[in-house]
Amino acid sequence: MSEPAVRASSPGSGMTPERPSGARAHRPSLHSLGLPPGKLARLKRLLYTHGPGGGTLLVLPIDQGLEHGPVDFFANPASLDPRYQYELARDGRFSAIALHIGLAEKYFHEYAGEVPLILKLNGKTGIPSDAQAFSALTGTVEDAVRLGADAVGYTVYVGSPAQDRDFHQLREVRAEADRFGMPLIVWAYPRGEAVAKKGGRESLYAIDYAARVALELGADVVKVNYPVASEKDAESPAPYNALHLGPEEAFRKVVESAGRALVLVSGGEKVSDAELLAKVRASMHAGATGIIFGRNMWQRPRDEALRLTRELHAIFREYAQPP
Amino acid sequence: MSEPAVRASSPGSGMTPERPSGARAHRPSLHSLGLPPGKLARLKRLLYTHGPGGGTLLVLPIDQGLEHGPVDFFANPASLDPRYQYELARDGRFSAIALHIGLAEKYFHEYAGEVPLILKLNGKTGIPSDAQAFSALTGTVEDAVRLGADAVGYTVYVGSPAQDRDFHQLREVRAEADRFGMPLIVWAYPRGEAVAKKGGRESLYAIDYAARVALELGADVVKVNYPVASEKDAESPAPYNALHLGPEEAFRKVVESAGRALVLVSGGEKVSDAELLAKVRASMHAGATGIIFGRNMWQRPRDEALRLTRELHAIFREYAQPP
Amino acid sequence: MSEPAVRASSPGSGMTPERPSGARAHRPSLHSLGLPPGKLARLKRLLYTHGPGGGTLLVLPIDQGLEHGPVDFFANPASLDPRYQYELARDGRFSAIALHIGLAEKYFHEYAGEVPLILKLNGKTGIPSDAQAFSALTGTVEDAVRLGADAVGYTVYVGSPAQDRDFHQLREVRAEADRFGMPLIVWAYPRGEAVAKKGGRESLYAIDYAARVALELGADVVKVNYPVASEKDAESPAPYNALHLGPEEAFRKVVESAGRALVLVSGGEKVSDAELLAKVRASMHAGATGIIFGRNMWQRPRDEALRLTRELHAIFREYAQPP
Amino acid sequence: MSEPAVRASSPGSGMTPERPSGARAHRPSLHSLGLPPGKLARLKRLLYTHGPGGGTLLVLPIDQGLEHGPVDFFANPASLDPRYQYELARDGRFSAIALHIGLAEKYFHEYAGEVPLILKLNGKTGIPSDAQAFSALTGTVEDAVRLGADAVGYTVYVGSPAQDRDFHQLREVRAEADRFGMPLIVWAYPRGEAVAKKGGRESLYAIDYAARVALELGADVVKVNYPVASEKDAESPAPYNALHLGPEEAFRKVVESAGRALVLVSGGEKVSDAELLAKVRASMHAGATGIIFGRNMWQRPRDEALRLTRELHAIFREYAQPP
Amino acid sequence: MSEPAVRASSPGSGMTPERPSGARAHRPSLHSLGLPPGKLARLKRLLYTHGPGGGTLLVLPIDQGLEHGPVDFFANPASLDPRYQYELARDGRFSAIALHIGLAEKYFHEYAGEVPLILKLNGKTGIPSDAQAFSALTGTVEDAVRLGADAVGYTVYVGSPAQDRDFHQLREVRAEADRFGMPLIVWAYPRGEAVAKKGGRESLYAIDYAARVALELGADVVKVNYPVASEKDAESPAPYNALHLGPEEAFRKVVESAGRALVLVSGGEKVSDAELLAKVRASMHAGATGIIFGRNMWQRPRDEALRLTRELHAIFREYAQPP
Repeated sequence: MSEPAVRASSPGSGMTPERPSGARAHRPSLHSLGLPPGKLARLKRLLYTHGPGGGTLLVLPIDQGLEHGPVDFFANPASLDPRYQYELARDGRFSAIALHIGLAEKYFHEYAGEVPLILKLNGKTGIPSDAQAFSALTGTVEDAVRLGADAVGYTVYVGSPAQDRDFHQLREVRAEADRFGMPLIVWAYPRGEAVAKKGGRESLYAIDYAARVALELGADVVKVNYPVASEKDAESPAPYNALHLGPEEAFRKVVESAGRALVLVSGGEKVSDAELLAKVRASMHAGATGIIFGRNMWQRPRDEALRLTRELHAIFREYAQPP
Repeated sequence: MSEPAVRASSPGSGMTPERPSGARAHRPSLHSLGLPPGKLARLKRLLYTHGPGGGTLLVLPIDQGLEHGPVDFFANPASLDPRYQYELARDGRFSAIALHIGLAEKYFHEYAGEVPLILKLNGKTGIPSDAQAFSALTGTVEDAVRLGADAVGYTVYVGSPAQDRDFHQLREVRAEADRFGMPLIVWAYPRGEAVAKKGGRESLYAIDYAARVALELGADVVKVNYPVASEKDAESPAPYNALHLGPEEAFRKVVESAGRALVLVSGGEKVSDAELLAKVRASMHAGATGIIFGRNMWQRPRDEALRLTRELHAIFREYAQPP
Repeated sequence: MSEPAVRASSPGSGMTPERPSGARAHRPSLHSLGLPPGKLARLKRLLYTHGPGGGTLLVLPIDQGLEHGPVDFFANPASLDPRYQYELARDGRFSAIALHIGLAEKYFHEYAGEVPLILKLNGKTGIPSDAQAFSALTGTVEDAVRLGADAVGYTVYVGSPAQDRDFHQLREVRAEADRFGMPLIVWAYPRGEAVAKKGGRESLYAIDYAARVALELGADVVKVNYPVASEKDAESPAPYNALHLGPEEAFRKVVESAGRALVLVSGGEKVSDAELLAKVRASMHAGATGIIFGRNMWQRPRDEALRLTRELHAIFREYAQPP
Repeated sequence: MSEPAVRASSPGSGMTPERPSGARAHRPSLHSLGLPPGKLARLKRLLYTHGPGGGTLLVLPIDQGLEHGPVDFFANPASLDPRYQYELARDGRFSAIALHIGLAEKYFHEYAGEVPLILKLNGKTGIPSDAQAFSALTGTVEDAVRLGADAVGYTVYVGSPAQDRDFHQLREVRAEADRFGMPLIVWAYPRGEAVAKKGGRESLYAIDYAARVALELGADVVKVNYPVASEKDAESPAPYNALHLGPEEAFRKVVESAGRALVLVSGGEKVSDAELLAKVRASMHAGATGIIFGRNMWQRPRDEALRLTRELHAIFREYAQPP
Repeated sequence: MSEPAVRASSPGSGMTPERPSGARAHRPSLHSLGLPPGKLARLKRLLYTHGPGGGTLLVLPIDQGLEHGPVDFFANPASLDPRYQYELARDGRFSAIALHIGLAEKYFHEYAGEVPLILKLNGKTGIPSDAQAFSALTGTVEDAVRLGADAVGYTVYVGSPAQDRDFHQLREVRAEADRFGMPLIVWAYPRGEAVAKKGGRESLYAIDYAARVALELGADVVKVNYPVASEKDAESPAPYNALHLGPEEAFRKVVESAGRALVLVSGGEKVSDAELLAKVRASMHAGATGIIFGRNMWQRPRDEALRLTRELHAIFREYAQPP
């Protein structure tokens, strides 16, 4: 095996300290991934040319207007205008901005060349029941090519009763992405009644499974949530119900399950700066390629967000790695 | 940001006065929208060449025969004949008439060149249950091209359990509209049990969300209802449940959520002239691009409708804006 | 408006007299319909070259073997053989015979050039539940072109919970019919639980709505049943619940709702000659283009049917009209 | 009418005697069917070149392994190997063997040119509930062309709640069969709860309806079961509930309902030789084109099956007819 | 019949002894299968060029990460990295490795030419209910061609209520496999409530049926589980409920039902070496072409797995057979 065998777990403290414990995990080399030239060219643009570089990814998502509605923009009214996020992504030197077709077609032309675009290809509103969670396509890989995007994003609900339709749709997207050399980023979210009964969507069991599903189905990059230990873990299948890993160890496990799919950590709801930075450092140390923080970024005033971004750049520099 | 930052909210009175309160909101410049040439050419025809011009839209819809049945025509029996609406649109100098394939194929040829056509692409009858609200296609973008239409209309039911089929269908329409340079007008209607439980389909929460969904999914223009405050708003998610905005402020919020999708206000059931004109003025002041009034127009006798139209033209002239 | 404004209603007696009351309604001129050349050529063949001519339609349908089964043929055993209907259509100088692909492919070649063909494109058996009434395609417009048909027929169930699939399928048929210049005849049938609750499938409310739906969706000709007043009309939406029109007036209303879609009256179960002829005369007087009588024709012995046909020709001559 | 009018019913005894009662019914002439050249060429191969000839069909089906599972092969273990049926069809000079794609691709090459192939295009297992009976495609008309088959077989479940999907699928098969000149044999089986309530799947009502459906939908040949009178016939719609026809008369009725679709009688479970031969003779006398016997053939030892086949050939010779 | 008729059953002991009882069953000759050149070339590569050769197949599957999640990798943590399985397949001289698109695209390039690839084309997670078991496509035959795979794998759930969708999907895969000359390996798994009621998914009834279904639907190779006798067999349809075959006899029956589809035995959960080797020997003796063992291989430490593999090679050599 030619990749460094450094992803081994190490005993964790159960907390996320200033300095993450365990050995630093190296990310897969881009050249080991067997990528076709188009994917390689576009991923290099995201990982090395734009944003913090050094093989890391700092992504600003703005699909919450669809997933949650304008409710998320009240915390920072300026953020209702998509130009706020575009300018934050540009001025904060993000690796890319991720959004749906409408925000791409109407706004990206002003920022083209200044911030790379990840076209999010499917979504839904949060209004009706989530029992059969499934996100229909809002755009296509061909749209992404036409718009000059450097990657596409797809949400798969792992565990949903609608998984057959989801896999079918994802396969079509994956095939088009292969055809056009477009990197595929999979938002891998555990969802559904069966997940709830096995520890819940934040459990290591569910997130670990979701990461592997993304790898198996052809993701180049997988976006996962950070697993959260809880009493409900006791309902997870063995041996998860008895693992009791610390958060960093648990996340390192997820990164290993993702294999050669690069891992993005999602932010979730807004938290304090200290918590955020500790989580980022722990993630990078455990082998993550980067982060995708939305509300934790654009719900802050612009200056505060830019300051935080500079701190993230500093952390990312520590984890730079050649291609 | 190059567009004027004038869409800021201002304290409202809770009523719609003769002179709307707050600063006048400017509409997005056509040239800021990144539109392909075909969309630009057609939108200019609608916004500047026909109708009141100056970047405004005065649209006459006649799809009620499908949505409600002939029942809507009893108030003005002459309106049962589609020529009544065509002639009203022509003689009242509307920007366009909006209708389904059958009324386009059988009648538009007599009015071609005199009144622009918006081909409505999907619809349903009001007879069966609305629980899984979804409007199937009745025509295609290609039909619109063949008939010489200047835009297409699509109804999306935001919040319906059938949203996945709706998004899928809308995406196909949107992609065809992009391919042919055909402007896409989205009728964004909150609908379904979950909406009813969160304040209802007329709540600011629901209409604000619907406007944003249209923007995210690629609408060039979005048609929304004017939000109506009610006691049920208390069931909307925070912070909507505690906003207590006046109607004009509420509508201004919706226009902001729509971003670079131009906003059309729909009329709903017939109201008095004074109410109607006040609503129009408030809408234009808050940043609307125009109105789409059906029953409020063609349920009136022709002379009365034409007189009202002249008053609308006068208001629209006040809100003219270069492209 | 260039068409005569003669479709006005007139007070009716509540019965169908020898001489229909009210002014004679003129049918839309073929040249006012904006038809493409192929549709015009084929419709002229049906309306002027074959059958009674003068712009009228006398259609013999034989799809009951699919819709009801062979049960309908017991009244006249000879009618079980499709040649019976073909020869009746030929010898009685019908405008066309309407049937499904199987009866077209296996028998039409013997009568080609002698009687025009309307290929019925969808159908179902009467065996399973009608709750989600929907008729799948049995043939295509391309089949009709290949077989030398002069029109196609499509059944839409207005009010069925399956209306979205129905509209989708009808749109595809309509688009193909436009593409090949093939006239589209829509069998517009109210159906479903919601219809039953609003006065039923024979109510003016339901049939009036169905006629309009056919117009809106692109029918060139619409086949409707004659509305039947009943106590259940009280459950129809206002103002239908209080209209109390006589049968001829009610039918005239339906013809008006159909606009520029020509109207065919269907026969339903077999009735007496006097009733039949009175109904035909009243229909033609109210603006119908013709009739489509199946069981009322081929359940009679051949001589009786031919004699009746001659009487229909005589009535139709009274209502001849130039193209 | 150019075909002999000899299909008239005659009083029957209620039993199936050595010599069938009533006049011998002639089958439709191949040249009266309006078939395209490809269908004509292939049907002549089946009806005149191979098998008993003289316009008759002796078909050996072997799809029971899919429909019932290997359970049917225990009666004659040698029959588990598909070569048993292929060799029986070849050595017994059957008109054709009917089977699914797998048995065609893996075995037919050894017998090509010796026994014609009917490719069965859809099927299902007998394991799950039959309530929504529907057989998905296992092969296509194009497969049949590629393999050198002379006809295709399709099972339609008349009366099933899934009839819309069934009709849709059958239409696609029928259209492809028309395109490639491939004869279409329809297995027309009554099925479903509604059928059970109207006399059951073996009732004359149900089988008569099924035969007509096959004709209407474009079958060139229809395979039906022999109707079986029972007390449940009283639940059939009038006039079936009061017909009381003998078996031969009942079958003659079905043949008439099938019109110009040639009729194949299916065998069902294994019965005695005498019963079988009497049924065959009665069927041929009543106008059947042939039989399709599976278990009644290959559940017998080879010598016994071949002897029986010779007797069938003898009967078929009596009913030979020019093309 | 040109193949040796040696698959006859023989009385078994009810156990799996060191030396299997009964005559050794020969496998179908590759040249008897009527395969197109592409399938023949690829199958020869799998059966004779790579792996143990002599017409046998030793396949290493690694799709458990999708089907079960990472839970299966805890027994041997090294196995979480797909390179572990690739290297085991290469160093243990397996005939092929079987996995999904993601593991193929990201890892196969390092092992191309060293170990053949079977691209598994459909799958699902084990999270939601299995009641309507159905595996959606994750890849296509075209993907397999592009990646240089030598076969494709497809899972069909025999007995699932979703069998119609499954058959439909399998047919499309089968047709593509025919088109590209790609061997088709069918994972034939009994599943669903109806199976549970007829003896269960491990019963001879169910597995025997599944094997035949694979043959009928066009499998070149069928993967089955080894049937397990139990008290529930009494609920199987006759005569299965009274067969009482020993395990080797039962398996021999399944091989016979599979006809000219080559048979792979799957491993299931990890068992002892002695049990495993006895099962392999019995399977090969009964006519199996090979085995597909996953957890029984890669849940062992590498050295132990390689040692076991050498023993399998030795057994396979005993059952070598010319093409």
